[in-house]
Amino acid sequence: MTGRLVKVAKEVLAERGHHLLESDLYSMRWKAVFDADDFPERLDARRLSFINESGHAFENGTQTPDVEAEQEKLLAADAVVLVFPLWWFSMPAILKGWVDRVFAYGLAYGYQGAGNTYRYGEGGFAGKRALVALTVGGSESDYSPRGINGDMDELLFPITHGMLFFPGMEVLPPFAVYGAVQIPDEALARTVASWRRRLEGLFDDAPIPFRPQNAGDYPDRHVLADSVAAGKTGLRVHVATSSPSSQREEQLVTGVPMEEALK
Amino acid sequence: MTGRLVKVAKEVLAERGHHLLESDLYSMRWKAVFDADDFPERLDARRLSFINESGHAFENGTQTPDVEAEQEKLLAADAVVLVFPLWWFSMPAILKGWVDRVFAYGLAYGYQGAGNTYRYGEGGFAGKRALVALTVGGSESDYSPRGINGDMDELLFPITHGMLFFPGMEVLPPFAVYGAVQIPDEALARTVASWRRRLEGLFDDAPIPFRPQNAGDYPDRHVLADSVAAGKTGLRVHVATSSPSSQREEQLVTGVPMEEALK
Repeated sequence: MTGRLVKVAKEVLAERGHHLLESDLYSMRWKAVFDADDFPERLDARRLSFINESGHAFENGTQTPDVEAEQEKLLAADAVVLVFPLWWFSMPAILKGWVDRVFAYGLAYGYQGAGNTYRYGEGGFAGKRALVALTVGGSESDYSPRGINGDMDELLFPITHGMLFFPGMEVLPPFAVYGAVQIPDEALARTVASWRRRLEGLFDDAPIPFRPQNAGDYPDRHVLADSVAAGKTGLRVHVATSSPSSQREEQLVTGVPMEEALK
Repeated sequence: MTGRLVKVAKEVLAERGHHLLESDLYSMRWKAVFDADDFPERLDARRLSFINESGHAFENGTQTPDVEAEQEKLLAADAVVLVFPLWWFSMPAILKGWVDRVFAYGLAYGYQGAGNTYRYGEGGFAGKRALVALTVGGSESDYSPRGINGDMDELLFPITHGMLFFPGMEVLPPFAVYGAVQIPDEALARTVASWRRRLEGLFDDAPIPFRPQNAGDYPDRHVLADSVAAGKTGLRVHVATSSPSSQREEQLVTGVPMEEALK
């Protein structure tokens, strides 16, 4: 089903005249592990600091060619669409390794070498849109606001808020296909239609209203002002309204849950 | 600092007479990417279903030797300690790839081929304890209950609840070292002392009171009963009390935040 989402995305975006850059990580045999081989010209040959070496390599043009190529694609893009199966409530290792390696210091964090001055709404990827589309084996109810796996929007917060909004992207509400192991034909048609609508709205739909760092809600850049979401805690305090759950019904498509499909 | 946590853990656990099994994933050059090479004897040679092939390989003893060796270690262990740096609000790709590949269908999910019958408190890793220790570049305030990065306990929920409690482990409150890029000597001594205490309490400290699937709180195995955490949503509804934040001050150790350390 993940492949189908990619295929539809390519069709819809091409139909609409967009120029597409694809990174099919498995086909590319993407190196997932961020390690010493990522830094051919070390700042400190004895001790490996990923932060220092990442910043040094980015600044001096000594990154590996695969990382540079991905950064160029990202910088050229007006929108980034991540499509993946949800494995263990997060992204597959190969995609995490794309983030670990490509989101360099000086670009995706420590933007302009200025520490945390620019993050959450500002940074190296500001002005771009991001859309996460995922396939899920389990049932939608398991990921509902009181579902046993945890609310999907909050499970994805480390990705939507942490990996995408942090370096500056506007992040659209995720698109999830539940019960993706087995989708009856009629549900498949609905899935594709919903996904098409989301892609058609890529540059128009309202992003998740995550609170920017530098617009007043975090006066010291670290902690929410007492007056904002007063008395509340939890990941949702970083969203300016109680949305995006309101849009949920339109975004989600459901097949047969894994445990039923495998019976 | 991550290496230091590992060293101290080995010392303390050996002192207390425990037999240690270590998996140093970088030294092992662990294969992070879960792919077709994980299934030398395919159930379906044409179409790759990770769930079906994982279950088939686990049941028939046709997994790769590296995956089998890690499962044997896990099954032999009374406690599992995961030590890693927090990268992009999650684990590094190499560790995610350990979970993706080792947590097989039939073992860590779909236990005994029974779908979701046994999960969250029951399953292939029941009776084991789990402790997550992480090093963090940012400041503790950024991860506080109203901190800009999101509350650390909730950011780690996909790991603690999703990867560890799901297959049955009892999960202790995480141990986090903030400002881990630069830790003054005095703070380092405190860090090591706190970490020692946590390791000494590995088999005695109270686990996070995540709600088990089959003890009544989820009557249909999917959604919380209306009477449980009535009217509430968010990841914390799956924790039986408002802890473990109460224990927080003892668990956390703070050095100089990344943005200060790199100035």
